[in-house]
Amino acid sequence: MSDIITLAHGSGGKLTHQLIERLFLKHFSNELLLQGDDSANFTLPTGRLAFTTDSFVISPIFFKGGDIGKLSICGTVNDLAASGAKPLYLSCGFIIEEGLAMTELERIVESMAKTLRECNVKIAAGDTKVVGRGAADKIFINTAGIGIIEEGIHLSGRNAKVGDKVIITGGIGEHGVSILVEREKLDISGDIQSDCAPLNTMVESILKVTRDVHVLRDPTRGGLATTLNEIAQQSNVGIRIDEEKVPVKDEVRGICELLGMDPLYMANEGKMVIIAPQHAVQEILREVKNNKFGSQAAVIGEVVESHPKKVMLKTVTGGSRMVDMLVGEQLPRIC
Amino acid sequence: MSDIITLAHGSGGKLTHQLIERLFLKHFSNELLLQGDDSANFTLPTGRLAFTTDSFVISPIFFKGGDIGKLSICGTVNDLAASGAKPLYLSCGFIIEEGLAMTELERIVESMAKTLRECNVKIAAGDTKVVGRGAADKIFINTAGIGIIEEGIHLSGRNAKVGDKVIITGGIGEHGVSILVEREKLDISGDIQSDCAPLNTMVESILKVTRDVHVLRDPTRGGLATTLNEIAQQSNVGIRIDEEKVPVKDEVRGICELLGMDPLYMANEGKMVIIAPQHAVQEILREVKNNKFGSQAAVIGEVVESHPKKVMLKTVTGGSRMVDMLVGEQLPRIC
Repeated sequence: MSDIITLAHGSGGKLTHQLIERLFLKHFSNELLLQGDDSANFTLPTGRLAFTTDSFVISPIFFKGGDIGKLSICGTVNDLAASGAKPLYLSCGFIIEEGLAMTELERIVESMAKTLRECNVKIAAGDTKVVGRGAADKIFINTAGIGIIEEGIHLSGRNAKVGDKVIITGGIGEHGVSILVEREKLDISGDIQSDCAPLNTMVESILKVTRDVHVLRDPTRGGLATTLNEIAQQSNVGIRIDEEKVPVKDEVRGICELLGMDPLYMANEGKMVIIAPQHAVQEILREVKNNKFGSQAAVIGEVVESHPKKVMLKTVTGGSRMVDMLVGEQLPRIC
Repeated sequence: MSDIITLAHGSGGKLTHQLIERLFLKHFSNELLLQGDDSANFTLPTGRLAFTTDSFVISPIFFKGGDIGKLSICGTVNDLAASGAKPLYLSCGFIIEEGLAMTELERIVESMAKTLRECNVKIAAGDTKVVGRGAADKIFINTAGIGIIEEGIHLSGRNAKVGDKVIITGGIGEHGVSILVEREKLDISGDIQSDCAPLNTMVESILKVTRDVHVLRDPTRGGLATTLNEIAQQSNVGIRIDEEKVPVKDEVRGICELLGMDPLYMANEGKMVIIAPQHAVQEILREVKNNKFGSQAAVIGEVVESHPKKVMLKTVTGGSRMVDMLVGEQLPRIC
């Protein structure tokens, strides 16, 4: 194969077929892709279907703790998991800038394949487009995913109830801060890396011990603050968070202070917000903490009747302030 | 709303929510999008599932006969239809360059909504990313689609049988040539326009009268020649085409001659290749010709035992030549 991606790799002709056979099929190979038709055809287990999509435009494409390939799998897998679905199949659309090194594309595809194995999920359909130099920035990836929701599972941002507790499955802001450090080439000591991780096994283990979970949502773009605001609005409830209890790594806090950023708005790619009734909290926390991506989980607040649709933060100094959705753009191309 | 798309529209924060409510929900509104969760949840009718994806990077984004929005719906709907599936739900991922005029985005979204109604298909999930100026070219759209294949329908590029007839549902090359004219600002008289159209109702009406169809495929990138080569390879058969019988509009032929292009390699976005046994051909042709997108349908060749995996063209002058897959790139960003 040539060393770089050319426009002909996106022509639909010989070079596209070569790229599919020598790169995509090599790493993603499964019986559905081998069908070789315009759509993959298969029979699904019974249950409600969950269907979602995300495009990934992150810059840089390789970063500490992950890369755009790993992110493109985790992002969609986590959106499915947040619906209580068992993720099964993904589609994958590449938009590549002419001139991307074939070695970089292969590194991305290998990383996707590794993450797919970790999640036990398959690529069922794909597409590759190539645009001229300057018409895209290296590579963009879209994944859409389907999963199955077992009977008895009803998760939604609309389901938060007054009295419920709010759990976060670990330290916040790590993805956002690691990208910031990478992009600004900050010379920071300490090991900040993206928390990019697939959370489907964590969610499955929670739902195995209890169906008493009201909301799951992964606080990506816009961070924890934006996600809590979305839930407060959807459920028409207030949410009160205790700043002291929100886990934030020292390095994350340090860099945020240095740059005047708020960890509450920094993106996460391997954390879940869980809202559940008090009586289920201990069981849930035990499962989360047993998972390798959940050891720092904590109860950080509760759902309240006062200030519906608003999120209040009890600050470390004892005061209270309203926490709004992200306004403007804190850090473009974070995912 | 602001007049142009800014980075903040892709932040996941307030402006993203505003864009979703005032533009996407306004035009795409349905009960699934109103769920407002990370994945859409729904129950599917029984049958095998078809799942596919395509990204659209066409330039220019508006052209005679369509635009990137209409194309993004038709492309994925047609891939589902080519599997014999009834298309039901699409996901939709926008990657937008900062600075795109809001009026252009709305025109695209309106066009998508119109085409969705025509196909009786719904957007179930969406995502919007914004990248800085120069990091993309105006707008890219990914759609992934799911549909249901009824029992008894078995279409695949692997199913072509010796003796089968090859049908094309109308004149070839119209999409490719119209984009070429648009892009090169050629001053051509006559009305060349893209054939961009959803073919799901045509396919449904064929499958209502006969299940005796072996292959359906829409000859997009790479044109009719590439699609026939793919089928010949997948089915391990030869395909013989009669040049005289392949419908090509005079304007398409003229422009191709002028520019030294071959209509066989020009992209189509509203045509189907149908391969079926002789005894079903008349029934199929009748259904196709009754459809508003199929009036020029013709039998153009047959599946043969000789030269397996190869496509031979009987030329107008009586000779024969092998027609290979597209090599290189004829026209980048055609879809």
